[in-house]
Amino acid sequence: MKEEVTAKRVAIVGGGLAGALNAVYLGSRGYKVDIYESKEDIRVSDKYKGRSINLALSARGLAALEKVGLDQMVKETGIPMPGRIIHNLDGKTSFIPYGKKGQHLFSISRSTLNKDLLTAADNLPNVDIHCEHKLIAMDIESTKLNFQVHGKVEKQVEADVIFGNDGAHSVVRKEILKKTRLDYSQQYIPHGYKELAMLPKNGEYAMDPKGLHIWPRQTFMMIALPNQDKSFTCTLFMPFEVFDRIKTKDDVIAFFKKEFPDSVSLYGEEHLINEYMTNVVGSMISIKCDPYHLQDKVIFFGDAAHAMVPFYGQGMNSALEDVRIFNGFLDEFHDNMGLAMQAFSKSRNVDAQTICDLSMQNYIEMRSLVSSKSFLIKKHVDNFLHWLMPRTFIPKYTMVSFTLTPYHQVVARTHWQDKIIDRVTKIFGLLSVSLGVILAQKIYQRCR
Amino acid sequence: MKEEVTAKRVAIVGGGLAGALNAVYLGSRGYKVDIYESKEDIRVSDKYKGRSINLALSARGLAALEKVGLDQMVKETGIPMPGRIIHNLDGKTSFIPYGKKGQHLFSISRSTLNKDLLTAADNLPNVDIHCEHKLIAMDIESTKLNFQVHGKVEKQVEADVIFGNDGAHSVVRKEILKKTRLDYSQQYIPHGYKELAMLPKNGEYAMDPKGLHIWPRQTFMMIALPNQDKSFTCTLFMPFEVFDRIKTKDDVIAFFKKEFPDSVSLYGEEHLINEYMTNVVGSMISIKCDPYHLQDKVIFFGDAAHAMVPFYGQGMNSALEDVRIFNGFLDEFHDNMGLAMQAFSKSRNVDAQTICDLSMQNYIEMRSLVSSKSFLIKKHVDNFLHWLMPRTFIPKYTMVSFTLTPYHQVVARTHWQDKIIDRVTKIFGLLSVSLGVILAQKIYQRCR
Repeated sequence: MKEEVTAKRVAIVGGGLAGALNAVYLGSRGYKVDIYESKEDIRVSDKYKGRSINLALSARGLAALEKVGLDQMVKETGIPMPGRIIHNLDGKTSFIPYGKKGQHLFSISRSTLNKDLLTAADNLPNVDIHCEHKLIAMDIESTKLNFQVHGKVEKQVEADVIFGNDGAHSVVRKEILKKTRLDYSQQYIPHGYKELAMLPKNGEYAMDPKGLHIWPRQTFMMIALPNQDKSFTCTLFMPFEVFDRIKTKDDVIAFFKKEFPDSVSLYGEEHLINEYMTNVVGSMISIKCDPYHLQDKVIFFGDAAHAMVPFYGQGMNSALEDVRIFNGFLDEFHDNMGLAMQAFSKSRNVDAQTICDLSMQNYIEMRSLVSSKSFLIKKHVDNFLHWLMPRTFIPKYTMVSFTLTPYHQVVARTHWQDKIIDRVTKIFGLLSVSLGVILAQKIYQRCR
Repeated sequence: MKEEVTAKRVAIVGGGLAGALNAVYLGSRGYKVDIYESKEDIRVSDKYKGRSINLALSARGLAALEKVGLDQMVKETGIPMPGRIIHNLDGKTSFIPYGKKGQHLFSISRSTLNKDLLTAADNLPNVDIHCEHKLIAMDIESTKLNFQVHGKVEKQVEADVIFGNDGAHSVVRKEILKKTRLDYSQQYIPHGYKELAMLPKNGEYAMDPKGLHIWPRQTFMMIALPNQDKSFTCTLFMPFEVFDRIKTKDDVIAFFKKEFPDSVSLYGEEHLINEYMTNVVGSMISIKCDPYHLQDKVIFFGDAAHAMVPFYGQGMNSALEDVRIFNGFLDEFHDNMGLAMQAFSKSRNVDAQTICDLSMQNYIEMRSLVSSKSFLIKKHVDNFLHWLMPRTFIPKYTMVSFTLTPYHQVVARTHWQDKIIDRVTKIFGLLSVSLGVILAQKIYQRCR
């Protein structure tokens, strides 16, 4: 059995976070693994373009890293964020915890984690990393891949199994879409995003680093995550047409003074203008497809299978979880690729589609946080019930971010919990009305 | 104004039904039109592959053809089908009319209509047809198109406006998807289809030609439309895995004898085997996207914009209607392409998505027709109410097939009508119960 397994040649297209982790998992199982990454080696070139600078890692990401011993690094270097720090228009801030004491997200550097994962993969004797290999075509029947190497030469390689870890604009998925009956949908949201660095002030963080900062402004918002070097990376989410309307340096300052007044002195006017004028506006896409695999030959993970809008902080977490869950199926089916792929595709699809939908819902919720007293009340009620019945009642955010409960079960359970709360509230309401009536009668009788 | 209009060079990619009709419309407006069709000229080669042989044309298709004087041809050569002829398992048939007297669909030959439309386009001095021109790339900014000509040479052409009339697997749409934020979804259904010819018997139709024959069998079905040459083209719709299970000649006969026993002698066993073994199984896809245009440069129509499963018979009808409706916007906006495209994209999207959904719903309804007495009762009630209040109550099928009511209004109105029926039924139910109680009391009093 072992011999058969080690004979399997695996091509992983994409050396991002999930691709590199996948290589570590499959390499550790004894497969001959080749990673093909279209960009330069980030461990050498230090260019790291096109993606967000930092990320919020939570339970699912940690569990996937734990299996290969990389969770410790995150816990040591990541910055714990126990809650949201909400910035009102008047500059006042309030803190809303993510869960209970001791529960926090980690703000981590995407590039550091990626480098560490690539190094971990590279340390395995049966894993090879090929950078500047851009997939241009794929023959599914013969599992042959054609790459453009260093922007010039073409090279053909053969593998037994192909893993598409190549992101939202996955070439692996596109090649499969050409040839098979795959259900697929993509949806862009009308908001774009722009990253803005907020530098340290006198060698210290310009704001409290113990939280994820949010400036919710209904139709748009800004967020900020702390970095190791005491800077923050802020992200402004706005409709494209609002970005388009801000053209001059004066426009930038006027806009920030009106909408995020407390942030202007934290950025420094000149630096803010420079960041805003230099940095591009990115678009956000939500992708669903079904199935995720083709026979026992090709499968795709992460953004390639289920890109989501970033408002639940689960994009990377779910991508890393894909790798862990697939590995579980390889265990279960004794490395029978066909069975593992089929099982993964079936069970993971409903979960991934659920977190895509939850992320889309949060796209509205996050922007509206400030004006919504009911949001705060709901959070307090949720936390109280969770404290009262820690195993029976778990808030949705907690289940998503601090447990490994499959996403679709999170939603099912939330529905059930909400129903109970609704019923209990009604009973209490009824009881208090009855009590009121009885009291009123007694008072009436006494006063008569 | 006129001068400006005639200066506009229009490239229509795809010379199918809607592409050719589009050329006639735009040519008649004075545009310089070039049709680029990837296949051979069907008027010469007589090869006509990959699509269904005949089609059910209804009001929307006819209205689009009327504008260019081609509706008469359909009325003369098409075969009127006033209703469905349902084949039970025991061979008994029953007739369910589509609408009221005088309302019928026309069974027409796809290739004949396509040839006529191409000829009509070709007759205009400012329209040119280029066959065996396969689009391989498109530069959107400069509206340049690259074609592979006769399978070899590459040719680049320039246009001011590009129309994607190139079907469900539209290259125009694919090129746009690469470069812009376009919402897109595709969904395959688990059923495939296979066409089977039923030849004339002793020089006459083997079955009654005055209807669309349906053999509904819950999980699958067969239908048949009459052709001009007294043959029928039957289409078998089944899950792919059922197709896969029928392997030998004996399997074919056994399957048809069990499921469609009355059809076997109509086909003739040998001919049936031959048809089944020779003809391929096609797949069916439902496509939605939003928007349908890019600036004032590119727009796509028909299957390229909204491919649908064929169970409402509206694929071609809606594609031809696209052309008529777009032409209306060109009238309204005095040939301002940008405004016409924007208006079309916005208003047509909701209608096209509605008919895509209705077609998907009918996918289940059609297969279940036979077992459903309630379907027949509903049809009778609908027809009765329509007879009673011809302007107030119009059955859904009638609105879709025999009126030009925008599809989304059809659904809105159906909901409203169903509500009224529901309410009326309840009132009548209440009245009859009350009446029963009163009667019972009277009887009781008399008998006492």
